[in-house]
Amino acid sequence: MVLPQRCDVVVVGAGYSGLATALVLRDAGIDVQVLEAQDRVGGRIWSERRDGVPVDHGGQWVGPTQTRLLAWAERFGCEIFPSHDAGDHVELWADGSRHLFATGRSSTGPGVEEYDALEERMDEMASAIDLADPLACPHLVEWDSETVESWLLRNVESEPARRRFALAVQGVWSCEPREVSLFHLLFYIASGGGMDSLMETIGYAQDSRFVAGAQAPALAAAAELGARVHLSSPVCAVRQDGSGVVVETEGGAITAQRVVVTSTPAATARIRFAPSLPAPRRRWLARSPMGDVAKVHTRYARPFWRDAGLSGQVVAYDDQPVGVVFDNSPADASSGVLVSFVYGDRYRAYAAMGEAERRDAVLATLTRVFGSAAADAVDHVEKLWPDDGWAEGGYAAVPVPGAWAAHGRDGWRTPAGRIHWAGTETATVWNGYMDGAIRSGERAAAEVLALL
Amino acid sequence: MVLPQRCDVVVVGAGYSGLATALVLRDAGIDVQVLEAQDRVGGRIWSERRDGVPVDHGGQWVGPTQTRLLAWAERFGCEIFPSHDAGDHVELWADGSRHLFATGRSSTGPGVEEYDALEERMDEMASAIDLADPLACPHLVEWDSETVESWLLRNVESEPARRRFALAVQGVWSCEPREVSLFHLLFYIASGGGMDSLMETIGYAQDSRFVAGAQAPALAAAAELGARVHLSSPVCAVRQDGSGVVVETEGGAITAQRVVVTSTPAATARIRFAPSLPAPRRRWLARSPMGDVAKVHTRYARPFWRDAGLSGQVVAYDDQPVGVVFDNSPADASSGVLVSFVYGDRYRAYAAMGEAERRDAVLATLTRVFGSAAADAVDHVEKLWPDDGWAEGGYAAVPVPGAWAAHGRDGWRTPAGRIHWAGTETATVWNGYMDGAIRSGERAAAEVLALL
Repeated sequence: MVLPQRCDVVVVGAGYSGLATALVLRDAGIDVQVLEAQDRVGGRIWSERRDGVPVDHGGQWVGPTQTRLLAWAERFGCEIFPSHDAGDHVELWADGSRHLFATGRSSTGPGVEEYDALEERMDEMASAIDLADPLACPHLVEWDSETVESWLLRNVESEPARRRFALAVQGVWSCEPREVSLFHLLFYIASGGGMDSLMETIGYAQDSRFVAGAQAPALAAAAELGARVHLSSPVCAVRQDGSGVVVETEGGAITAQRVVVTSTPAATARIRFAPSLPAPRRRWLARSPMGDVAKVHTRYARPFWRDAGLSGQVVAYDDQPVGVVFDNSPADASSGVLVSFVYGDRYRAYAAMGEAERRDAVLATLTRVFGSAAADAVDHVEKLWPDDGWAEGGYAAVPVPGAWAAHGRDGWRTPAGRIHWAGTETATVWNGYMDGAIRSGERAAAEVLALL
Repeated sequence: MVLPQRCDVVVVGAGYSGLATALVLRDAGIDVQVLEAQDRVGGRIWSERRDGVPVDHGGQWVGPTQTRLLAWAERFGCEIFPSHDAGDHVELWADGSRHLFATGRSSTGPGVEEYDALEERMDEMASAIDLADPLACPHLVEWDSETVESWLLRNVESEPARRRFALAVQGVWSCEPREVSLFHLLFYIASGGGMDSLMETIGYAQDSRFVAGAQAPALAAAAELGARVHLSSPVCAVRQDGSGVVVETEGGAITAQRVVVTSTPAATARIRFAPSLPAPRRRWLARSPMGDVAKVHTRYARPFWRDAGLSGQVVAYDDQPVGVVFDNSPADASSGVLVSFVYGDRYRAYAAMGEAERRDAVLATLTRVFGSAAADAVDHVEKLWPDDGWAEGGYAAVPVPGAWAAHGRDGWRTPAGRIHWAGTETATVWNGYMDGAIRSGERAAAEVLALL
């Protein structure tokens, strides 16, 4: 497809944020063109049909306060259905013990009370961060001066409670507590509406899934944008001067008034900007490494664990690779699908194994919990996000200590001349999520509209 | 200059590490070609002659245990001379107080005893790191789980001692204690031979300077390499397969057996690697942001402060931009030069000012310490390293918490197929220094030689 030579606004990236940016601009009558590096839209959201079953390799859930994503579901007629949450969840511990619990009832495992108190304390701390201006938080420097790990060691005596929280950090931030700034963690808690909102299933972030997969709204948005979306068009360079901005790809260049860059920090680092980006923005990006996560889908003829009264949910506080398992069966339960999440240090150990060994390790955990039937998989597929050529990790970037305090004010998302920033990492509400991605694109589009 | 189509080994970068790599390979009879992005060699070492006076905008000192750099000085006949250390150094505090002290005598300022004990403790901790295998340190995960700041707050009660250490961190690592992993700090202390070795002047890291500027040995090395060094040739891509590696620039490509990449993490991030680099290496680089430092040189007709018994050295524990001042006069003292260092948070505040305001701020500090004569500058020039298009900061990369523990083993400098790694960030001894850069190049050359 030949690129047009000029337009009003170029959007770099056709993930949720880029598509949201483009839709708003298109609706306002602006000539917008979207350049996407990959041969598909959706970015970190990718639904692959395998034997007719949609498999969400990336982001997948939608919850009731994710109102922008829900609005897209409605706008594009993408049906959602409640996550399977009935039955007993299973907790695994390193001593071989297991504990059953169900949603709304506490586990009988160790450290539950201390963990609950810790969640409350985190919520309370997070409430000191005003999302209208997170950088005005009076504790900014204090909280951005340490890792979550050092805070936990000083403030939580119970080792099992710390272990529970470490898995929560893996599960929500896809990193270890030692890898993330305490301030960023608290900002993110505020952004997502609290610990329960981030962690829980029905009524919260993991409430529902898309019948056709979470990429469906992105595909529908791209269809609306039509020929404005250019796939397989990675941007090499962005050059701006007083009169405009030139966005270069190997297949040609587009001259525009403004550009909205929505790519991940890793992908943005590969674009040559002339003149250079302002130092705060470069330094923010250089302190925003991506999390480490793999999603592994194992499909069975039926969701057989439901017969045994199990929900399919597992939280593993032991040392094997799998951290969390969910029932990811399709809406009609025509087959049974378990999705295993591997994060943080576990991810590093997992990625170092060969493919067969990785499969064996996941199936060993599933059979340990769900019995020998779990060995009879009809499909098994994994997505290692750190090896993704464009995202280079997931779910999102995880700013390290010092990034917010020193570089947040001018580096987080302040436009650089004609360059505006979107992407879920720039979202105020639901930062790190699909909903935040849409919001970020809408905010960037509004910025641009005010200047055109 | 036209690039050759093939050679045995391509070296990316003509800083000290790249030049060292190339010299060893050339001496071994290998056909080596060096591709340098800038129009000069030296990398983070750049000596500009201003009115005949060499001004070192980057690295400048050489000490007695930096034996590889000293060997280059001898090999290339580059004369060195002792740093000016005679006279009283001045300490400034936020309450307006000042304390004089001289080398070998303690300051009468606050927190000295506690600070001395802290240095000893740091040395003791650093001694647990075996440079032959830093990752075998039994405290690796513990120390890599927190920032230096959180450790200081827990372990050092004296606020003035913490303030002294914060300036030490600024001075040696060009960042704030909250920005660096405790493990990395300790590794670096071990690498440089201890706190005194890093911090002190005569007999230590700041012992001597080069008469013609610290770039002189690099220029001499480049002259020896002759037409093998290609300036203004930034590398865009490195593609490898079973038969060789292709290193691409805008002006052409070279096919080789091996490539040694010596560029900073920031510059390396802009090279497209095909196939992608292994995840641990990508993740190490993504967790290695550069420090923030400016060097500001102010020249006078004479080193007038010496007449008043002052050494020209200032350590400022207050809040104005300048952290440290040194007498940087030329060897023959034919003029007087003061160099002011601006690091970390101070750097961020400094960079946000206009150029005139920055000059006023530096001159205000110099006149406050050295009297009104310090206002009569004949030259004033600054180098803001974060704005350098290739280094994107200085002196070196500062790995954040979690980088060493999770990604160090395979990400620090393990070759990626035909790609080998040099650069001072990969040095075992004198990591972050010119001497370490040379050592890293010699190590990488040996790796390559064993495989050709």
